[in-house]
Amino acid sequence: MKPYRLASKDDRDAVKDTIIEISGANGPCLIGEGHCVIIAGPCAVESEESLLASARLVKELGAHVLRGGAFKPRTSPYAFPGLGVEGLRHLAVARKETGLPVVTEVLDVRDIDQVLQVADILQVGSRNMQNFSLLRELSRLEVPVMLKRGFAATVEEWLLAAEYLMAGGNDKVILCERGIRTFESSTRNTVDLGVVPLIKELSHLPVIVDPSHATGKWRLVRPVAKAAIAAGADGLMIEVHHNPEIALSDGKQSLNGASFARLMEEVRAIAQLEGKIM
Amino acid sequence: MKPYRLASKDDRDAVKDTIIEISGANGPCLIGEGHCVIIAGPCAVESEESLLASARLVKELGAHVLRGGAFKPRTSPYAFPGLGVEGLRHLAVARKETGLPVVTEVLDVRDIDQVLQVADILQVGSRNMQNFSLLRELSRLEVPVMLKRGFAATVEEWLLAAEYLMAGGNDKVILCERGIRTFESSTRNTVDLGVVPLIKELSHLPVIVDPSHATGKWRLVRPVAKAAIAAGADGLMIEVHHNPEIALSDGKQSLNGASFARLMEEVRAIAQLEGKIM
Amino acid sequence: MKPYRLASKDDRDAVKDTIIEISGANGPCLIGEGHCVIIAGPCAVESEESLLASARLVKELGAHVLRGGAFKPRTSPYAFPGLGVEGLRHLAVARKETGLPVVTEVLDVRDIDQVLQVADILQVGSRNMQNFSLLRELSRLEVPVMLKRGFAATVEEWLLAAEYLMAGGNDKVILCERGIRTFESSTRNTVDLGVVPLIKELSHLPVIVDPSHATGKWRLVRPVAKAAIAAGADGLMIEVHHNPEIALSDGKQSLNGASFARLMEEVRAIAQLEGKIM
Amino acid sequence: MKPYRLASKDDRDAVKDTIIEISGANGPCLIGEGHCVIIAGPCAVESEESLLASARLVKELGAHVLRGGAFKPRTSPYAFPGLGVEGLRHLAVARKETGLPVVTEVLDVRDIDQVLQVADILQVGSRNMQNFSLLRELSRLEVPVMLKRGFAATVEEWLLAAEYLMAGGNDKVILCERGIRTFESSTRNTVDLGVVPLIKELSHLPVIVDPSHATGKWRLVRPVAKAAIAAGADGLMIEVHHNPEIALSDGKQSLNGASFARLMEEVRAIAQLEGKIM
Repeated sequence: MKPYRLASKDDRDAVKDTIIEISGANGPCLIGEGHCVIIAGPCAVESEESLLASARLVKELGAHVLRGGAFKPRTSPYAFPGLGVEGLRHLAVARKETGLPVVTEVLDVRDIDQVLQVADILQVGSRNMQNFSLLRELSRLEVPVMLKRGFAATVEEWLLAAEYLMAGGNDKVILCERGIRTFESSTRNTVDLGVVPLIKELSHLPVIVDPSHATGKWRLVRPVAKAAIAAGADGLMIEVHHNPEIALSDGKQSLNGASFARLMEEVRAIAQLEGKIM
Repeated sequence: MKPYRLASKDDRDAVKDTIIEISGANGPCLIGEGHCVIIAGPCAVESEESLLASARLVKELGAHVLRGGAFKPRTSPYAFPGLGVEGLRHLAVARKETGLPVVTEVLDVRDIDQVLQVADILQVGSRNMQNFSLLRELSRLEVPVMLKRGFAATVEEWLLAAEYLMAGGNDKVILCERGIRTFESSTRNTVDLGVVPLIKELSHLPVIVDPSHATGKWRLVRPVAKAAIAAGADGLMIEVHHNPEIALSDGKQSLNGASFARLMEEVRAIAQLEGKIM
Repeated sequence: MKPYRLASKDDRDAVKDTIIEISGANGPCLIGEGHCVIIAGPCAVESEESLLASARLVKELGAHVLRGGAFKPRTSPYAFPGLGVEGLRHLAVARKETGLPVVTEVLDVRDIDQVLQVADILQVGSRNMQNFSLLRELSRLEVPVMLKRGFAATVEEWLLAAEYLMAGGNDKVILCERGIRTFESSTRNTVDLGVVPLIKELSHLPVIVDPSHATGKWRLVRPVAKAAIAAGADGLMIEVHHNPEIALSDGKQSLNGASFARLMEEVRAIAQLEGKIM
Repeated sequence: MKPYRLASKDDRDAVKDTIIEISGANGPCLIGEGHCVIIAGPCAVESEESLLASARLVKELGAHVLRGGAFKPRTSPYAFPGLGVEGLRHLAVARKETGLPVVTEVLDVRDIDQVLQVADILQVGSRNMQNFSLLRELSRLEVPVMLKRGFAATVEEWLLAAEYLMAGGNDKVILCERGIRTFESSTRNTVDLGVVPLIKELSHLPVIVDPSHATGKWRLVRPVAKAAIAAGADGLMIEVHHNPEIALSDGKQSLNGASFARLMEEVRAIAQLEGKIM
């Protein structure tokens, strides 16, 4: 017997996949079976100017949701931790100007209210997938939550983390595979695309893939993005920067405009084959 | 500096990807950039009758090469070790009847001559990727070798194993990703599709993917196969059995005719997008 | 260059190992080089009665610190999450009665004040090793923090998490190895005893080992505990229950009184060889 | 039910641990429960002179068996592959002069006869643990075989490899843990000492530990060696070189005479506590 219930496909009266609707200025954006959502933007919010440049770029190239980190989990206490509340303000500006809905990470239960001012989707990062206090707080909201897979979490643990969110009443959960930690170090993580069709079997929740963190190398992002959609993923989360060479974090894995444009074109062709609206 | 030379893309006077030609009764089959080779057949050769049934099936559905194990590496000394020389004879019959070239595994340096009687491609299995005696013997041949990635081998170790083959004079090496061992046990192995574009950057050698061993679950084979081609792989190795329910080994991960037919159709569409001849 | 400074051995003017003093009713307890601290008690606080029974037992057998979880991180939202504040009250009673200092886990920044009422050492669990909000709050305290290694954390990430605590001003950090996640599933985790002498080289901080979580099997706890001290660890954290068969969590890995008594005797002999006061 | 029988503790009429007797010039050397065997010597045989220097050193310091590789498995085809047959001749000389029994690796079924001329124990290396052709040949001999754990092998796979040897009639199998491959790269491998007491529960076969390959850093070898014996191992395999700085392979993990002397002294004290004859 599966240890999760609400996240399981079996337990739905009608076996209907969850489709989450996000309202943007340009109309609703749907996340789930039959759709291919593209979330794009810089790793971290660096300044209003820089964020706007990246936001306009991804919008122009067809992204549906803007990503950008205001609160950044950093391995070292001496690394750039994000702009925090100031970063949220920049996100609000970019959201207003482009009309793109925004996804951004929340790291601390005490920040939830502030993040909610700007976020259309709250992101739970890989290191927080089993931060149960955070999950419990988010489970009381009605705002969609994107739950990244812990970098060493099994599929069962991941679905149980989703169950935490759902058990508290929030059924708008989006799963995001972002690579797992293995012995292989030639890529930043090992992207586990076998779990995409597996999750589709086990759960009714949408599952998207983040090829940027998974590979850590921008040249691998496009092929892995296409592979993710071919494997059945409901969308992608891509790091795009208007000028990756000056990015404060993760520049090596960020696409510039030209690369992102090519990715969009090639992903669109595969999404079409899969019968997905993009 | 890279520790491998002959397998490296950099060291080729002309940066030309290796394309390997296999001659079948129905004309040559090409393995490498720009082509999408489909290798299919049962995990193990079980009987002449059964092999022929599977061989006819995969040929009819468009496979280019027949796979089938006569010598099987088995974790337990009490498990079915394959039919050995008798299995080779069945492969010869199937090869003759269908005209499909044959790939089969060689486990022991002393078996090479016999396996060469029937094999168009010699397979080095995952557990033997660092069996350097075997690699050295195979490096003296002119027959193509398919080198499966060790289930815990890094990309560098894998390319160095290819280098063993090439350093001895055999430049017809086909790499095959078949999943790596990680903490995740919901799939048999974790398929590492990030390495497909990585290998394409590092090496001129063809790289194919085996989604059957990688996932261990037949329902995941088709999506992962498509993902592999979308990631840039030069082909697939698929376990197909005319009746998986009675297969002596790996029945759970084998496709039947209907599933393989659907896989072929969907893979063909992606190969076409990728500009690959299939 | 090492990415951490305060946690590093190199950066101390005088290369002096950190020794942390905890005051118990029976005099001070020292944690660090030259000492062997034994922390023991039940996985979770289950009731006042049960906790007292286990606390008396471990005290009698020579433990220096009482462990017991009031707030338990649980993979499933449906599992027993600990008694919470009520559990803290029971810990206070046991602390008072036995005179043993108490270590207990804090999961949520909002619980810190309450946990501080009873805890002599605050535990950061494996899943929270990179909960940077929590680390930052704890860095402002003067209370010792036991930082468990993340189950998939590298040594560098672990020391950087310690650096978070120290960078904020809390230099009373105790490292605790509790096993890492690998492909091997015959033990709950893989205990990594090679890191014990490695940490001793890299850092001046005390490092102890938790063989209960590392192995998940009570019969393996004693041998691994002895191995840890032989490898140079500064102490142990052991799950002991007065009646493991009725334990609400982790009963399989808990020692009963007789097993713990034997462990203490055998560990004492090795600690003596190592010149450690126990 | 366990998939192995002969290697299992349960299947022995009398539950008696296997003790293997090796005859040396100085009397028999016993490997198994109640004894602590020390195998020491250089990684590779480099020259007669060098081998003799190291052999005399380890003998003088109390080692029971001499190790030294004539055939070396090397990741790169361009690395020093060992002296081969010439190396075997040097081993014969060292064996004769010191009276120490010799363990050396056999890589190829075709080399077995030659290796048997000099080896008292045949070593199956980590990469060959599942080289079933090799195991089958060795199963027909009466010479003891030391079976190193594959660097990504589960305990069950390891015991099944032992079962291969025993199923063919060779019951003189010595297991050797040498570290497994994990995400952690601060040590060469992750030494898995939890498996030592686990193997003791599951099997009657002797199990020893190789802390040199496990850690890859000579400064970690002594603490891990002590930990192994404290965990219940039946002995150690240690790389010792009379002058590690000029060693052709693995110099970084080799002990010199002074370090080995200290290791012997400290290990002896722990072996004594454990009631083991050393």
